[in-house]
Amino acid sequence: MRSRYDQVMSLSLRRGFLFPSAEIYGGLAGFYDYGHLGAMMKRKWEDLWTDYFLSLDDNYYLIDTTSILPYKGLKASGHVDHFTDVMLTCSKCGESYKAELLLEDLTEKSVEAMTLEEIRTFISTADVSCPECGGKFADPSQFNMMFPVAIGTAGKDKGFLRPETAQGAYLNFKREYEALRRKLPMGLAIIGRAFRNEISPRQGTYRMREFLQAELQIFFNPKTFEDRIPREETANDVLRIATAEGKRKNQIDEVKVSEIVDEGVLPLFFAHHIALVQRFYHKELGIPTEKLRLAELSEEERAFYNKIHYDIEVDLESLGGWREVAGVHYRSDHDLTGHEKGSNERMSVMDGGERIIPHVLELSFGIDRTLWAMLDILYTVGERTVLRLPPRIAPISVGVFPLVNKAGLPEKAREVYRVLRRSFDAFYDDAGSIGRRYARMDEIGTPFCVTIDHQSLESDDVTVRERDSTDQVRISIDDLRTVLNSLLTGVTKFEELK
Amino acid sequence: MRSRYDQVMSLSLRRGFLFPSAEIYGGLAGFYDYGHLGAMMKRKWEDLWTDYFLSLDDNYYLIDTTSILPYKGLKASGHVDHFTDVMLTCSKCGESYKAELLLEDLTEKSVEAMTLEEIRTFISTADVSCPECGGKFADPSQFNMMFPVAIGTAGKDKGFLRPETAQGAYLNFKREYEALRRKLPMGLAIIGRAFRNEISPRQGTYRMREFLQAELQIFFNPKTFEDRIPREETANDVLRIATAEGKRKNQIDEVKVSEIVDEGVLPLFFAHHIALVQRFYHKELGIPTEKLRLAELSEEERAFYNKIHYDIEVDLESLGGWREVAGVHYRSDHDLTGHEKGSNERMSVMDGGERIIPHVLELSFGIDRTLWAMLDILYTVGERTVLRLPPRIAPISVGVFPLVNKAGLPEKAREVYRVLRRSFDAFYDDAGSIGRRYARMDEIGTPFCVTIDHQSLESDDVTVRERDSTDQVRISIDDLRTVLNSLLTGVTKFEELK
Repeated sequence: MRSRYDQVMSLSLRRGFLFPSAEIYGGLAGFYDYGHLGAMMKRKWEDLWTDYFLSLDDNYYLIDTTSILPYKGLKASGHVDHFTDVMLTCSKCGESYKAELLLEDLTEKSVEAMTLEEIRTFISTADVSCPECGGKFADPSQFNMMFPVAIGTAGKDKGFLRPETAQGAYLNFKREYEALRRKLPMGLAIIGRAFRNEISPRQGTYRMREFLQAELQIFFNPKTFEDRIPREETANDVLRIATAEGKRKNQIDEVKVSEIVDEGVLPLFFAHHIALVQRFYHKELGIPTEKLRLAELSEEERAFYNKIHYDIEVDLESLGGWREVAGVHYRSDHDLTGHEKGSNERMSVMDGGERIIPHVLELSFGIDRTLWAMLDILYTVGERTVLRLPPRIAPISVGVFPLVNKAGLPEKAREVYRVLRRSFDAFYDDAGSIGRRYARMDEIGTPFCVTIDHQSLESDDVTVRERDSTDQVRISIDDLRTVLNSLLTGVTKFEELK
Repeated sequence: MRSRYDQVMSLSLRRGFLFPSAEIYGGLAGFYDYGHLGAMMKRKWEDLWTDYFLSLDDNYYLIDTTSILPYKGLKASGHVDHFTDVMLTCSKCGESYKAELLLEDLTEKSVEAMTLEEIRTFISTADVSCPECGGKFADPSQFNMMFPVAIGTAGKDKGFLRPETAQGAYLNFKREYEALRRKLPMGLAIIGRAFRNEISPRQGTYRMREFLQAELQIFFNPKTFEDRIPREETANDVLRIATAEGKRKNQIDEVKVSEIVDEGVLPLFFAHHIALVQRFYHKELGIPTEKLRLAELSEEERAFYNKIHYDIEVDLESLGGWREVAGVHYRSDHDLTGHEKGSNERMSVMDGGERIIPHVLELSFGIDRTLWAMLDILYTVGERTVLRLPPRIAPISVGVFPLVNKAGLPEKAREVYRVLRRSFDAFYDDAGSIGRRYARMDEIGTPFCVTIDHQSLESDDVTVRERDSTDQVRISIDDLRTVLNSLLTGVTKFEELK
């Protein structure tokens, strides 16, 4: 049997979820394109994400900012100096490796928290050599992962492709604070591409050089933010926490939000938001609870700008275990303070009678990773091959088929299709047996199919079939749009129609 | 009085449509960010564009592809060799200029169609000198406008930021042709960022180094495509054509689609599609007919890959006249043939019993330019300052106000707001007089405002005010959502409610 990874990749390539970028030229390691089904799924995911997270506060908004940023801004943010990976280069064949990944593979030990000096000592004592040619490694070096871009005819203006969307929100903080009439908390979200020159891109869309992020930066006054948190909303949510130590033992602690806050382990505002993110993955995206955990990052593991950092991880068979898909980061006033120093523009604001530099809570989502996780977990290959995507995320919402290609059924089916496609992503199919057509829709996650049969011509009704149960009900054509709309938005459950 | 450009820019900066990118670091020439209102307007524009153009055929789909493309692909497409501008560099101060723009400014003559040699002769006879320092120009040179990107630790893989989204569609043609079950015509649309290292970025968002495109590539069989065009649909549309000669004389010919086709000036498939694009700008985006023209590009003006090329131009006061916002390009089989040669992958397909390389019709839209054009044309500054955006594109769909901040009105208004925001982009405002609140909504194009007054508490109804007429009607709170929905989608006109 094919591996889970191959199953998901095969579905992606055959049906048009994902393709290696520039594949006809042999591709580029670390780059993937979205085919038509992937692009539809992605856009729906983005709409859902926006609805869910921007509705947390009236003062949260989407903005959209450039991919190219100037040197100065990324110097001030710390990325020019610190956004590096330790690289090992073979002195024989010249192949380069990301030290962290290579050493974990070869020695099963984590070097994530080690300094350059410690890694040097480690490789000499552990006696590792190049997996390609067996050669010895040169001294480890720091490699900056940003892609430089020279701007202007003489390339005088130095810039970089942004390594995260977040910086766009910090750079526009002042302008938006004015445009939004000086209120905290203020949320600025960006959905867009980010770029990292990964030393070792691998595992499909998991570690890419160009990738999609959805990030919400919440700017707040640390003295008053907690008062605004609707604590009763998540108090009883059970967080599935893997502490820095728990991760090593593969142990998950289930703790209520109210408990973890009362015990002083996490501040309320942080616990509340990780609960919301966990809920998003479970309830909105359909990831089973047991496949989700909130992984704490220790001080050594955290990025240089994070004060508290939890990753949302999903247990993925295709990638061999727990993988980060999102993160919640308390960045304190690191970012705005850095930009105040770098730009000499005042970032502090008056709030509650005091001049403060707002703190930042970042909710950061890897879109590609999350979509991959959904394909991995919700795709069942077997007697029936079904992709159990939540209806709101399914690329095609409804398939429309004539039962047979004669006796006026195709004409009637086309008519129904033309009406439905005005409101839904509908797909018309009359090729092959009805069973094959259902199977094709099941495989790409289409939640409902409408079939026009002989009876339809007399009684003006159709069969609606639900993907997961394969149950069918008869619905009048006049009601079809309304019924499908209630089903797709979750207002009505399919069972209620029977 | 302020210039139109300054009026639009001031609106953009104050209210959050557009900000210079990385402004706190002095900005980068040719880069702009979208603030919260601009980002909302942009996303709605994208949804409208997608609905309008992808509904032209069941086999048209959105895909999403990477910004970084490999050298080989852009070599094969011709961009490495031909995507150049002629540059003039001052031998005294070193300043560089785009020859076409500088010479047009200085001599009012177009050099667009000249070769490098001809430009050299022209500058020596016309006796032009550097506007910065008066120095002489060195020999003109070709400057490639793509941004190179070095990929991998040693930068071994050479790539570029894509100069147009189009290439992503050509590179995925084969995969999508299979996934979409081998049918022509097939349409692949991409909405995303493209990058050009412009020698002289200028005029706000008009000539940017990083910009947004929405492009639809229609792959078709030239022998059979015309049979599928619903010719009666656009036969009577009046095209406003400026021929290559007409442009010089500032003359527009009004010609029906059926006439221009019958006269053999344009093939049906081309005339039909420019009619659809003209209609999109007029009917969907609200640009008055007299501000629109379809400008023919002569053989010398066209890009190297276009066989027929018309630009959609809008007459913009802020930018001093007719400016290109979109283009319709018949690229023939140039692109797929080039990639077949470059990649050695077969791009031909079986269609109608014959092996053919599909031809391409490209509908290409500059999103930033189009949004700027809408702000320019639809913004009226005066006694009443109003942005007359079509309701579907307005960033905020409905404002909700309590008439006064007492007697239970804010509570009731909040209640109405909470219901409306689930379905619409609603904005709650209780600051300042009701007149000021209306004015703030008028200025950003909010088509409808809902006011809760004392009577609302008794009879459970509210006042709905229309932006353009300032007329008001009384609507019961129970019906409000349905009524607003009909108004915003254009099903109901406001007059009908009176």
